[in-house]
Amino acid sequence: MILSRRMAEYAVKVKYEDLPDEVVEYTKLCILDWYGSALAGKDEKPIQSLLELVQEWGGNEQATLITGGKSSIGNACLVNGASSHIVELDDIHKSSIIHAGTVVIPAAAAVAEAHNLSGKDLITAVAVGYEICYRIGEAVSPSHYYYWHNTATCGTFGSAAAVAKLLKLNVEQTMYALGNAGTQAAGLWEFIEDGANTKQLHTAKAAYNGALAALLAKKDFTSASRILEGRRGFFNAMSEKYDTDKITRNLGEEFKILENSFKIHASCRHTHPAMDCVQTIMKENSLSHEQIQNISIQTYQTVLNITDNPNPETVYASKFSSQFCAALIAIKCSASLIDYNEEILQSPEVRELMKKVTVVADPYYENAYPEKWGAKVVITLNDGRTFSEATDYPKGDPEKPADKEELIQKFKSMTLGKVWNAEEHVQAVLGLEKIDTAEWISMALGEEQCKQTQ
Amino acid sequence: MILSRRMAEYAVKVKYEDLPDEVVEYTKLCILDWYGSALAGKDEKPIQSLLELVQEWGGNEQATLITGGKSSIGNACLVNGASSHIVELDDIHKSSIIHAGTVVIPAAAAVAEAHNLSGKDLITAVAVGYEICYRIGEAVSPSHYYYWHNTATCGTFGSAAAVAKLLKLNVEQTMYALGNAGTQAAGLWEFIEDGANTKQLHTAKAAYNGALAALLAKKDFTSASRILEGRRGFFNAMSEKYDTDKITRNLGEEFKILENSFKIHASCRHTHPAMDCVQTIMKENSLSHEQIQNISIQTYQTVLNITDNPNPETVYASKFSSQFCAALIAIKCSASLIDYNEEILQSPEVRELMKKVTVVADPYYENAYPEKWGAKVVITLNDGRTFSEATDYPKGDPEKPADKEELIQKFKSMTLGKVWNAEEHVQAVLGLEKIDTAEWISMALGEEQCKQTQ
Repeated sequence: MILSRRMAEYAVKVKYEDLPDEVVEYTKLCILDWYGSALAGKDEKPIQSLLELVQEWGGNEQATLITGGKSSIGNACLVNGASSHIVELDDIHKSSIIHAGTVVIPAAAAVAEAHNLSGKDLITAVAVGYEICYRIGEAVSPSHYYYWHNTATCGTFGSAAAVAKLLKLNVEQTMYALGNAGTQAAGLWEFIEDGANTKQLHTAKAAYNGALAALLAKKDFTSASRILEGRRGFFNAMSEKYDTDKITRNLGEEFKILENSFKIHASCRHTHPAMDCVQTIMKENSLSHEQIQNISIQTYQTVLNITDNPNPETVYASKFSSQFCAALIAIKCSASLIDYNEEILQSPEVRELMKKVTVVADPYYENAYPEKWGAKVVITLNDGRTFSEATDYPKGDPEKPADKEELIQKFKSMTLGKVWNAEEHVQAVLGLEKIDTAEWISMALGEEQCKQTQ
Repeated sequence: MILSRRMAEYAVKVKYEDLPDEVVEYTKLCILDWYGSALAGKDEKPIQSLLELVQEWGGNEQATLITGGKSSIGNACLVNGASSHIVELDDIHKSSIIHAGTVVIPAAAAVAEAHNLSGKDLITAVAVGYEICYRIGEAVSPSHYYYWHNTATCGTFGSAAAVAKLLKLNVEQTMYALGNAGTQAAGLWEFIEDGANTKQLHTAKAAYNGALAALLAKKDFTSASRILEGRRGFFNAMSEKYDTDKITRNLGEEFKILENSFKIHASCRHTHPAMDCVQTIMKENSLSHEQIQNISIQTYQTVLNITDNPNPETVYASKFSSQFCAALIAIKCSASLIDYNEEILQSPEVRELMKKVTVVADPYYENAYPEKWGAKVVITLNDGRTFSEATDYPKGDPEKPADKEELIQKFKSMTLGKVWNAEEHVQAVLGLEKIDTAEWISMALGEEQCKQTQ
């Protein structure tokens, strides 16, 4: 069996009517959460730089830019894909280590809008896009993740699959889309050493590349048929080990979008398990950060690979520092978007506490990863008392879920100052299946908020 | 020393006035050769598909499309980058295994035109772009090439470096351009199994991605500073072995563009050494293909990896079949663009002879590769006589050079039916350093030929 064919047959077969209610509801929450992140990030400098560039390039008014106005599908993928990843609050799937929303949804929303498709079409396409990239990410985890940013690499397949679904590609064409997605898959973790803008470029390009592959596939632009398992394909080139069974097992019988996690803290997901533990210890024992002698974090190795940074120099980099994140939540008992800022990053209080944070790998958490993203935290006080707390899952995981109301609240707090009528935006997205055209996207994703905030 | 910094310092420092005359002359030949390939390919279906897509997307009239008309820099990179790679006659650098022209020149030409820069600016930028990607390709050869299409992956750095030079980026910004080029580097060889359109997508995207990285760098969009040698950078992620010395040795003291090879036969370069030998044996001994009992090719392993295909099903795939290419040249004693067609691919005469071709790896050639791309051919006749011929270099290599007149002739044969006034186009490109603005590009790369052929 050719894996791309199996995935393509699945994608072609799925119908909105076959989606269980909970999948429809969950997918809309994913879209809402994505939308909040995109709005929250739109005024950041890297996004404005990308916006400037696409304005210089120009494009037909096919799809709404989250920054306002319209441009080509390609340009919308770039701007919206970047914007939804910068505040580090977008959704995440543990076992594939993918933020699917920021790649799949910009591409799907742009194409749905350009082709005037229904909300049902969009929901179906997003569910398909998540399914495909999650499975590919699971197949190559964890080895692929050492060098590669799964969201960018595997995400490209998700973007392609979602757009393929919207364009009603046949099986062959969907295989072309997947093949040319895989051959464009890119995104190295090296940027993390510099806390560089690259991370947003990754999601922008993954959305763009996947959409490009699918739009070309519609024109019968051919690709490798065995892009995953082929001798010189994605699996062999980009992972030490892979498991093809992850692609096919129960495909079409379950919906992996239901395994999606939502982020509550505004930092890299890998910092969350420890942060939750710190928060619990501080809250439940009514402690103050001045009492702390040290904070010891035991966790899985990837936390160290990505977030072991005792001295982040920028606010952005601070979201990838376990030391900073643990200190922040110990001090403020909260770590939402507004808690990450230059002032607190430079405050002596945080800097002092950061020195008291140690992060080490622990076999229990390492073995459980990536199915479980866990941590144990031991806080020792100056008076010698110790408190410990452990979790196998960060808050917002399906095993420790955030509910609909919490996500609506998160949307409202993320979009504060970005839109006047957050409630209307929430209602538009949560009523998506009742809207016959993609006009809502234009409303919800830009023009109205743009007018109202000017 | 940080490798990106060393490369950026080099790129910033190079001036047109410092280029030796032979570098200027050779660079113009590279541009001419690229231009011929781009014109030759522009009406092929995959290029027309890309053209349709960029027309749907639209874009400001910044840069000329080889197919006629203008669009954005990004769109011009896509169309022109794809078009110049499809007839498989574009230039190649042996030791890096890169076709630099098809990636570096579309990006450089588009940006030079959009910014109304001089011919001298363009020549300098192209020489810099070649230098950078050749060195990176040499550093990761040969291991990288097993999975990765160097032209696409390493080429992205070349496109970024050329555009960085044109945009007069400073050292920091040039480092950003290189970093965000490397993190976008992609292109798997798997497509070759299907003879798919992917190869043109690779060059289109490498041109686009490099230009995007540099244009963003101009806006201070940051990247990984150690994109090559970093722990999770390009070298470690994408090659088994690498040699950083290839990046720095004599950088700024030599011009690697002078090591460029030009292709005479219209097929994959790896098929050429054996084809040259077959051609020599057939010509010098006045043999006819009916006399042949078998053709035995001994060569380096990569020839087998890429071109051991006894049954190509499309004209495109036939250019990647050592069996077909050897049979073709034995029968026709020529293998120019018009010799590759459906009729000859399906002819019983070629099909019969293809069965008599064997390709095996030989340690002598394998050890010499990639510095030398050699082959030995033994032809055995039905009457038992044998003839053998060996070469360390295919025709068109610097060691076995094609001269300026041959390249002008090649341009004219490639563009037959594409332009009326080939001689004027040749003169425009070969007089590039005398033209003060990039207006010539608009003339040479599209509008005039477009008008005249309509």
